[in-house]
Amino acid sequence: MNTFAQNITQQIAQKKSHICVGLDTDYAKIPDIVKKNKSVEDAIFDFNKAIIDETQAYAIAYKPNFVFYGAYGIEGLKALMRTTHYIKDTYPECMVIAEAKRSEMLITAQMVGKEIFEKYRCDAMTATPWFGQDTVEMYAPYTDKAIFIFCHDSNPSAGELQDLTLASGELLYEHLTELVVNRWNKNGNVLVEAPLTYPTILKRIYELCDDRQFLLIAGLGPQGGKVDDLKLLKKQNFVVNASRAIIAASTGDDFAQAAGQAAKKYRDEINKLFC
Amino acid sequence: MNTFAQNITQQIAQKKSHICVGLDTDYAKIPDIVKKNKSVEDAIFDFNKAIIDETQAYAIAYKPNFVFYGAYGIEGLKALMRTTHYIKDTYPECMVIAEAKRSEMLITAQMVGKEIFEKYRCDAMTATPWFGQDTVEMYAPYTDKAIFIFCHDSNPSAGELQDLTLASGELLYEHLTELVVNRWNKNGNVLVEAPLTYPTILKRIYELCDDRQFLLIAGLGPQGGKVDDLKLLKKQNFVVNASRAIIAASTGDDFAQAAGQAAKKYRDEINKLFC
Repeated sequence: MNTFAQNITQQIAQKKSHICVGLDTDYAKIPDIVKKNKSVEDAIFDFNKAIIDETQAYAIAYKPNFVFYGAYGIEGLKALMRTTHYIKDTYPECMVIAEAKRSEMLITAQMVGKEIFEKYRCDAMTATPWFGQDTVEMYAPYTDKAIFIFCHDSNPSAGELQDLTLASGELLYEHLTELVVNRWNKNGNVLVEAPLTYPTILKRIYELCDDRQFLLIAGLGPQGGKVDDLKLLKKQNFVVNASRAIIAASTGDDFAQAAGQAAKKYRDEINKLFC
Repeated sequence: MNTFAQNITQQIAQKKSHICVGLDTDYAKIPDIVKKNKSVEDAIFDFNKAIIDETQAYAIAYKPNFVFYGAYGIEGLKALMRTTHYIKDTYPECMVIAEAKRSEMLITAQMVGKEIFEKYRCDAMTATPWFGQDTVEMYAPYTDKAIFIFCHDSNPSAGELQDLTLASGELLYEHLTELVVNRWNKNGNVLVEAPLTYPTILKRIYELCDDRQFLLIAGLGPQGGKVDDLKLLKKQNFVVNASRAIIAASTGDDFAQAAGQAAKKYRDEINKLFC
């Protein structure tokens, strides 16, 4: 059985896209044309379905951000479940990466495996490293799934802990990346998340990766990440996520078509770097 | 309006208990007498309700671990929602601490506030510090709620990152505790979680806390934490969590009564330390 990294790398070669569409769907911001006469659950799902149908030709993966759905309670979570199942049923070649930021360990990580990989049928998820290797040990049986560890995030205060200098001289994120690459990734399913908003850090993390690694790169678009900074990557073993830049490309009735066009534009701009 | 720390400290003085009951409810382990002829949702809720009814006289707080419910999909999450609402409707003096380990920031943290404090009606939640101060900024409006930051956790590999020595000579968890106490806790609602399984570390974290702090202490019971080690705390500004030691005190038909007796036993043992 192939690993997630092998599967998605094949898809990238076939489909010629590195685009991950971040489904940070906030019910409050869904256009009225979608919401009208609908339950919260149906409105969220219908919005996502329209976005997915229009972007799937240009996207290699979708990354729903779980807390946006949890904010609307059970209705929101039902819409999330329908969304992840819709993608796997309709476009099974598209990967679903749960932006779940789970931070569990040992027995509770087993519960996360059931939740994310079995119930939601996601192919991968994001997780924080704060609890050490116990975070990833229990995912060993999920050899075709992946856990992306936030080696360094893209938010403004990410460096408050992640950039601390250790007594060894290394920065904390460098030390962590080495742990992930050399110790935690025993089964080929513990991968690296890195920020496009901090190109120097992205470069350093990329240098520390080995051939089994595959990167989830965050922060393209309004967060500040620029396509051009992807030039520093030598191989095509990455996806780059854009959320608002795609799903909120238009807030009007043409929101889905605009999302499709934005995904296509990013896909083409990134592909040009690798010609 | 009082802060969460003030409210729970008052409750502790009135009720004379420091016990937080961890609702790590795994459907697979619920006794058959509860499960028989019931949906997953009803079985999980009925188990929790029985535990809560029998322990509420001795407990100051409940801490449902969200991923145990998520593992059973929408049904599990409905049972969780019914559980948190049941506590607040029936025993409003008992605090509900969401063991949600959320790791969000800025706009996504706003979503977490809606999810945990509004939809689930929890009084507090746990969060990881990995993304820096952006993690807690958006909870400023929730002045009567609390965010417990894992300054050091109780699991075996917790120290892999948390005990790293910084160039400054401090350990990472010490530096983090100072950040939480002196910078992140601007509004009195950013509090400290610390491990009973590592008494030396608990002591050090306690030394770094100021008068506005209130501690959630994890790991009593099968994880290895001992009542006696709570002696090092000089003030009564803490709750200590036990999960399996209470909710799995018996796996037979008397599971709820056994949970009540276990909670009472721990309550009495801890109170003796402060006579």
